[in-house]
Amino acid sequence: MKVIADLCVVPIGMGVSVSKEVAMCELILRAAGLKTHLHAYGTNIEGEWDEVFAAVKRCHEALHATGVPRISTNMRFGTRIDREQNMEDKVRSVEAKVLSEKLS
Amino acid sequence: MKVIADLCVVPIGMGVSVSKEVAMCELILRAAGLKTHLHAYGTNIEGEWDEVFAAVKRCHEALHATGVPRISTNMRFGTRIDREQNMEDKVRSVEAKVLSEKLS
Amino acid sequence: MKVIADLCVVPIGMGVSVSKEVAMCELILRAAGLKTHLHAYGTNIEGEWDEVFAAVKRCHEALHATGVPRISTNMRFGTRIDREQNMEDKVRSVEAKVLSEKLS
Amino acid sequence: MKVIADLCVVPIGMGVSVSKEVAMCELILRAAGLKTHLHAYGTNIEGEWDEVFAAVKRCHEALHATGVPRISTNMRFGTRIDREQNMEDKVRSVEAKVLSEKLS
Repeated sequence: MKVIADLCVVPIGMGVSVSKEVAMCELILRAAGLKTHLHAYGTNIEGEWDEVFAAVKRCHEALHATGVPRISTNMRFGTRIDREQNMEDKVRSVEAKVLSEKLS
Repeated sequence: MKVIADLCVVPIGMGVSVSKEVAMCELILRAAGLKTHLHAYGTNIEGEWDEVFAAVKRCHEALHATGVPRISTNMRFGTRIDREQNMEDKVRSVEAKVLSEKLS
Repeated sequence: MKVIADLCVVPIGMGVSVSKEVAMCELILRAAGLKTHLHAYGTNIEGEWDEVFAAVKRCHEALHATGVPRISTNMRFGTRIDREQNMEDKVRSVEAKVLSEKLS
Repeated sequence: MKVIADLCVVPIGMGVSVSKEVAMCELILRAAGLKTHLHAYGTNIEGEWDEVFAAVKRCHEALHATGVPRISTNMRFGTRIDREQNMEDKVRSVEAKVLSEKLS
């Protein structure tokens, strides 16, 4: 089962900056061979369900291993069986409609 | 690794009512032996990481098996290594502070 | 426009415990006359759109005023025009289906 | 109060494709003069609190006006008082750490 997801990991009990922890997660996701797109409030992830969630678990484990006492994560994930879809399709499909609306 | 989570599963491409699909997920979570608390916008879940996410995967698989073409889920999940905590602790801890603030 | 929402406020750059900040938000929501239900990973809120979001803004303002440097909030909110619905309806509707499934 | 947010609007009770509704929201956000970045599972938004949430309300109103019976939205939003930050800063800060880690 393929999943398109969006992951937002928030370390708690650390400093105000969380970019170090977010970067560590990004490296873990990429090392897992997952397709990712980092944005200003999370990271898009595309891959097989088990691989995606195994990588997310490694993110929590790795952050705790570096001393982060508490983590609160918010994740969106979508699956569909009507047709194949990837991250680029989703964005392209919306952008095309935004454009056609503007021109009409 | 223990996790306290909150799951909100939204079937897409079905009717306006989603309670049948939410009830099916609830049954799957309970059948997995997980502690749950159903509320008006999701379900709290407490358990071991692997058991929680295995059950969430079964929710997606079961809904698709009954014909739901597309699912968009939103999930919060938290882990901590500083101390043990369960769902009741979290609510009690906030309620105690709400009360003491009101009385002060 | 009525909205049923679920709010999860996470203070960043503070200690590991966030119950004080969550309790402060709870008091603000209740003081606004909003119907709330506190659970282990957030708070259900029911009310008119403008009142709900005005109270959520006050939560951010109040936490910052007490010195919280950064806040990351996750919120779900739903509106519908097909029929009236309240928080109890949503839970009851799912619970009824969970029960009937168990008995069948 | 400035806010950096991420919005994911899910129409319920419509077809399997939601790109038309997502495009409509995107147009509303851009027409409001808000800075946005569309990605595969939502849209980053940057702006003043009141303007951001007024635009989000217009998204719900506009979708309902075109016949969408029910909407379930998931939104992340962050505020901070320790320093100014924009969407590009957030991504750049993480990317820099990802790169330096890779090279080290």
